[in-house]
Amino acid sequence: MKTARTIAEVRHAVSTARAQGLSVGFVPTMGGLHAGHISLVEAARRACDFVVVSIFLNPTQFAPGEDLSTYPQSLEADLASCDAAGADLVFIPDVETMYPGNALTTVSVSQLTDTLCGQSRPTHFDGVCTVVTKLLNIVAPDKAFFGRKDFQQLTIITRMVADLDIPVQIVPCPIVRESDGLAMSTRNQRLSAESRAQAVSLHAALTEARDQIRQSHSPATEIIDAIEAYIRLNAPDGEIDYIQIIDPETLCDVETTDNGVLIALAVKFPGARLIDNMLVDSEPRSQ
Amino acid sequence: MKTARTIAEVRHAVSTARAQGLSVGFVPTMGGLHAGHISLVEAARRACDFVVVSIFLNPTQFAPGEDLSTYPQSLEADLASCDAAGADLVFIPDVETMYPGNALTTVSVSQLTDTLCGQSRPTHFDGVCTVVTKLLNIVAPDKAFFGRKDFQQLTIITRMVADLDIPVQIVPCPIVRESDGLAMSTRNQRLSAESRAQAVSLHAALTEARDQIRQSHSPATEIIDAIEAYIRLNAPDGEIDYIQIIDPETLCDVETTDNGVLIALAVKFPGARLIDNMLVDSEPRSQ
Repeated sequence: MKTARTIAEVRHAVSTARAQGLSVGFVPTMGGLHAGHISLVEAARRACDFVVVSIFLNPTQFAPGEDLSTYPQSLEADLASCDAAGADLVFIPDVETMYPGNALTTVSVSQLTDTLCGQSRPTHFDGVCTVVTKLLNIVAPDKAFFGRKDFQQLTIITRMVADLDIPVQIVPCPIVRESDGLAMSTRNQRLSAESRAQAVSLHAALTEARDQIRQSHSPATEIIDAIEAYIRLNAPDGEIDYIQIIDPETLCDVETTDNGVLIALAVKFPGARLIDNMLVDSEPRSQ
Repeated sequence: MKTARTIAEVRHAVSTARAQGLSVGFVPTMGGLHAGHISLVEAARRACDFVVVSIFLNPTQFAPGEDLSTYPQSLEADLASCDAAGADLVFIPDVETMYPGNALTTVSVSQLTDTLCGQSRPTHFDGVCTVVTKLLNIVAPDKAFFGRKDFQQLTIITRMVADLDIPVQIVPCPIVRESDGLAMSTRNQRLSAESRAQAVSLHAALTEARDQIRQSHSPATEIIDAIEAYIRLNAPDGEIDYIQIIDPETLCDVETTDNGVLIALAVKFPGARLIDNMLVDSEPRSQ
């Protein structure tokens, strides 16, 4: 496995791979790698001949007051994990490499960014879209792999790639969870033991809500109230940011839960804001 | 010369050329081709092995009330001109091909878009940046050719390409003028004979201003006043939109004309808003 610190090195390595007829897979990360990230590298390894991972803690997707300065970083361990998972190249740019001088250009997606995390983090997705556009232009992969845990991000990036005709296939990958159900997140390690124990209630509440939808197709408001009550009871350290039941394509709130819906939530614990979601597939009303 | 109506056809033709080791040059246009456009095709022909021209009247860079519906189109003549100038492929997408369904993504450049044409056309450059990003992603050229007549557009596109790491070289090309000095523009043909005769005063005023700067390095306000007086006198049909003397890199207004500056102006005639500009290179004060 090689590492590259400059854009020119990445382009050279990728064009060399291309000249050998290899397909290129790409996994963009902000470091602090966990089993969820590694599952993306493994998916890229299975689907493509040459696998590029980027590790770049992108400052432009953090607003002032957010957790940029305390975001967990672990470069040495990350490189070992990438190597073990079969990455061929890890791109580790510094901020000056990604944002030299006076950058003035922003890539924005409307509508899809107005809901869910976009409401409490209004500038976040502009930062995400712009850096992902840059990384896709630098790496020029055939396929790029994104986890469904950041479901809104995945939806926005997929829309952006289609709208801008970026020649890449976005590959969605499943959420990877701890054995007790907590969705893997770099931020989990910032939870106290107490909050960590409580955080399992996010997945538990989602699972219960999914079962309730499948059984009763209750109105969305009822399901949301039940999730809220569950989390308030079982995660007293958590402050609920949002709980929404949405159409998984438009991300618009739904009133009824008859068709396939996505339940998404964000809860702020001391030290870490956690998100999770669950897709409830369309199914016939249970017997 | 081939023509392509779909993105897939363009990508196939370009990747076939690339597989043969050919370099790719690109000239984006909105049709209504004149000698200025053709000079870009010829520049691409000299610099690259495979030359792609796009003809797409992009609706998103026109605001409501602007001249989208009356913008001159001349496809048959355009194709003949491209062929004669040595184009290999002309991409002629329709609006549905470029904007299928619900496009939500915008590429924006700040600061550089706040001045000059950006003031009277506040949404114009978002439309330009977004469509140029799309076209560059579709054609994936090594070099793309833009005229200096749209100096602000050239500056913005150059900045955007650098900021987003789009792997293309933007090649600026000289303004092409009619024999009396009027800058070539698709919109010139919409001028009445009288306005056409008056329109020559834009270039005449710029030339006189350039000479005045070279001789006296007068303050920008004095030069601007002189240009305004000249145009008011010689082009009574014209309504001045702006006359600015700016730093050609930042596009910020300058007060003094000691260093290299750009004089830029826009004048609305009945039927056509015209722009023109002139670079005044840094020179020692004239003897």
